[in-house]
Amino acid sequence: MFEIVFDNAKIFKDCIDALVTLIDEGEFQITKEGIKLRAMDPSQIAMVDFVYPKSALEKYEVPAETKLGMNLDDLSKVTSRVRAGEKLTLKMDKNGSRLDLIFKGKTTRRFSLPLIDVAGTTPKQPKIEFDSKVKINGFTLKEGLKDASLISSHVVLKVNKEGFTIEAQGDKGEVLIEAKKDDDVLLEHTVNAEARSMYPLEYLNDLLKTTDNEAVVMLDLKTDNPLRIEYPIGQATIVYYLAPRIENA
Amino acid sequence: MFEIVFDNAKIFKDCIDALVTLIDEGEFQITKEGIKLRAMDPSQIAMVDFVYPKSALEKYEVPAETKLGMNLDDLSKVTSRVRAGEKLTLKMDKNGSRLDLIFKGKTTRRFSLPLIDVAGTTPKQPKIEFDSKVKINGFTLKEGLKDASLISSHVVLKVNKEGFTIEAQGDKGEVLIEAKKDDDVLLEHTVNAEARSMYPLEYLNDLLKTTDNEAVVMLDLKTDNPLRIEYPIGQATIVYYLAPRIENA
Amino acid sequence: MFEIVFDNAKIFKDCIDALVTLIDEGEFQITKEGIKLRAMDPSQIAMVDFVYPKSALEKYEVPAETKLGMNLDDLSKVTSRVRAGEKLTLKMDKNGSRLDLIFKGKTTRRFSLPLIDVAGTTPKQPKIEFDSKVKINGFTLKEGLKDASLISSHVVLKVNKEGFTIEAQGDKGEVLIEAKKDDDVLLEHTVNAEARSMYPLEYLNDLLKTTDNEAVVMLDLKTDNPLRIEYPIGQATIVYYLAPRIENA
Repeated sequence: MFEIVFDNAKIFKDCIDALVTLIDEGEFQITKEGIKLRAMDPSQIAMVDFVYPKSALEKYEVPAETKLGMNLDDLSKVTSRVRAGEKLTLKMDKNGSRLDLIFKGKTTRRFSLPLIDVAGTTPKQPKIEFDSKVKINGFTLKEGLKDASLISSHVVLKVNKEGFTIEAQGDKGEVLIEAKKDDDVLLEHTVNAEARSMYPLEYLNDLLKTTDNEAVVMLDLKTDNPLRIEYPIGQATIVYYLAPRIENA
Repeated sequence: MFEIVFDNAKIFKDCIDALVTLIDEGEFQITKEGIKLRAMDPSQIAMVDFVYPKSALEKYEVPAETKLGMNLDDLSKVTSRVRAGEKLTLKMDKNGSRLDLIFKGKTTRRFSLPLIDVAGTTPKQPKIEFDSKVKINGFTLKEGLKDASLISSHVVLKVNKEGFTIEAQGDKGEVLIEAKKDDDVLLEHTVNAEARSMYPLEYLNDLLKTTDNEAVVMLDLKTDNPLRIEYPIGQATIVYYLAPRIENA
Repeated sequence: MFEIVFDNAKIFKDCIDALVTLIDEGEFQITKEGIKLRAMDPSQIAMVDFVYPKSALEKYEVPAETKLGMNLDDLSKVTSRVRAGEKLTLKMDKNGSRLDLIFKGKTTRRFSLPLIDVAGTTPKQPKIEFDSKVKINGFTLKEGLKDASLISSHVVLKVNKEGFTIEAQGDKGEVLIEAKKDDDVLLEHTVNAEARSMYPLEYLNDLLKTTDNEAVVMLDLKTDNPLRIEYPIGQATIVYYLAPRIENA
């Protein structure tokens, strides 16, 4: 049976927060390379692809690949109880029907959560040849999307030679946020072709909710194609794909 | 067309907060002297008289006097998005039907809000010969009014030779807050004749909501007459008049 | 008529918070030794026994023992208005039907609250020969109970030679928090006989709500008997007794 130790339990909490924002339940794959989870949200508008590499774990004893179906709502309540400086051990309980989470700090706290059957199959990773890529400061991106939320429920993201823009319009007016190619907040900016697509703000705000203000968020775009969002959580990586809303011609 | 630049966008936000607490929509007058707005609240119990002087603005190019009718609820949501260290430029958009608010900091953010027709005429400034005046620390005044809110929905303000008092009574008991003439919190205290009037706490709490704790609030009183409240926001000035509730004889 | 002065009004506020968590109204006894209040909660599941000793008060002039029936909800709203650095004087108002609370700091604030008749008699202190006692860090105890609240509405507290444990189980899983006898958070640990009882979490969380994180909480246990909880608030002492839930055999 496996035993996995996170030196800093807080990082695992942040990962679960980033998953539960999209899906209520999910199946972790405990593989030779690390912990993985890939799933679509119930409305099939967004996908998450999560990898926590073995190399980032203090201990990773996995004799055989295992699948762990979990209620992520319940799991996130438990991981939210983490305290500063705690280690976290994951292992199966004695009779193999529950996952033990053991937090070790000033006290020892053991939670045992039941495994569940998760319906459906693991989705495939989309194959998209993106036209442009930006790396942007997490705070700037999140706040720009909140600006846009005052005006509309959808936002147009655009990358061209000048930089990256967030735009929205509606009955209440118009908003345009520009991060120009030389602005400090735009950390990388690669344009093969201009890309411009509309996305739902509710999803974008949710997907970036747990992003650290100082995190570097990578966005890959292609006109009228899914948006790829990637950011690190410690040494783990979260990738989301978000379907575009095709604007009326 | 005009162009107005606020060196510190935060001050403009504070002004809009002080207006929206009383009125949902209003007409700014962009005059040769500065930005002005005077209006009654919908229930005609209070009036606000706001002046942002030209001299306090980094740039104030106003070729002709202009009126800007705005939905202040929507405007305040936009100004609330200000970030530390940003400048703000106000100007008309190209076709003159919208006001552009351009925040410049690490990014450039432009909001365009529609102009609206505001019904009614600008009220006249009341002419009252007040009998007494106090200048009091903003925190002390706000907290004294919150104290009184535990006991009643109305409060009696009184100025006499001894100082300034806030009083309330009701089924739940009684409260008396005294700032005596030599207390540090009473910064000025001028009494031609004793003044004593009752005012609605809901309004008082709202009007002082955005006052800085360190601000000096000037109160002018006359028995059974409107209360005049004045405090600065940066170099701008907010004045409110609040109708008294005449107590039963 | 009595006059009682608290050098630090904040301590009295903390005491009232600790009382109002259990009872809505209560009768203070102003005795020769100090201020006391003992009462059962309305559902008869918990008792509070509060003592504020005369020696901890700046002034304690009590010519005759007095009873003060108070609405603690209203009183706690008043004491919550305390500001840092204020003194508090308690005395009867002129005609003896109200309690005056006079806060003195930068201003003088006097609240007068009506006395009320409180039904019922003062309960007796339970006589229990407890089997074990622990002193534990307040934060550790409160957080352990919150951990357990994720899993169940009841919790089993256990003291034995190994230490102190909090346990809960339910449909959502299981939780076990251990403070071992050598852990820093377990400040004292005396076992005459193992003790193990179940208590309702809603009550436990409420009773410890106002406990300082740094406070030392003393727990006395005996299997299937009330739990005794004691902690200091300044130089005052709060004791609670909480009835066990007898588990099905």
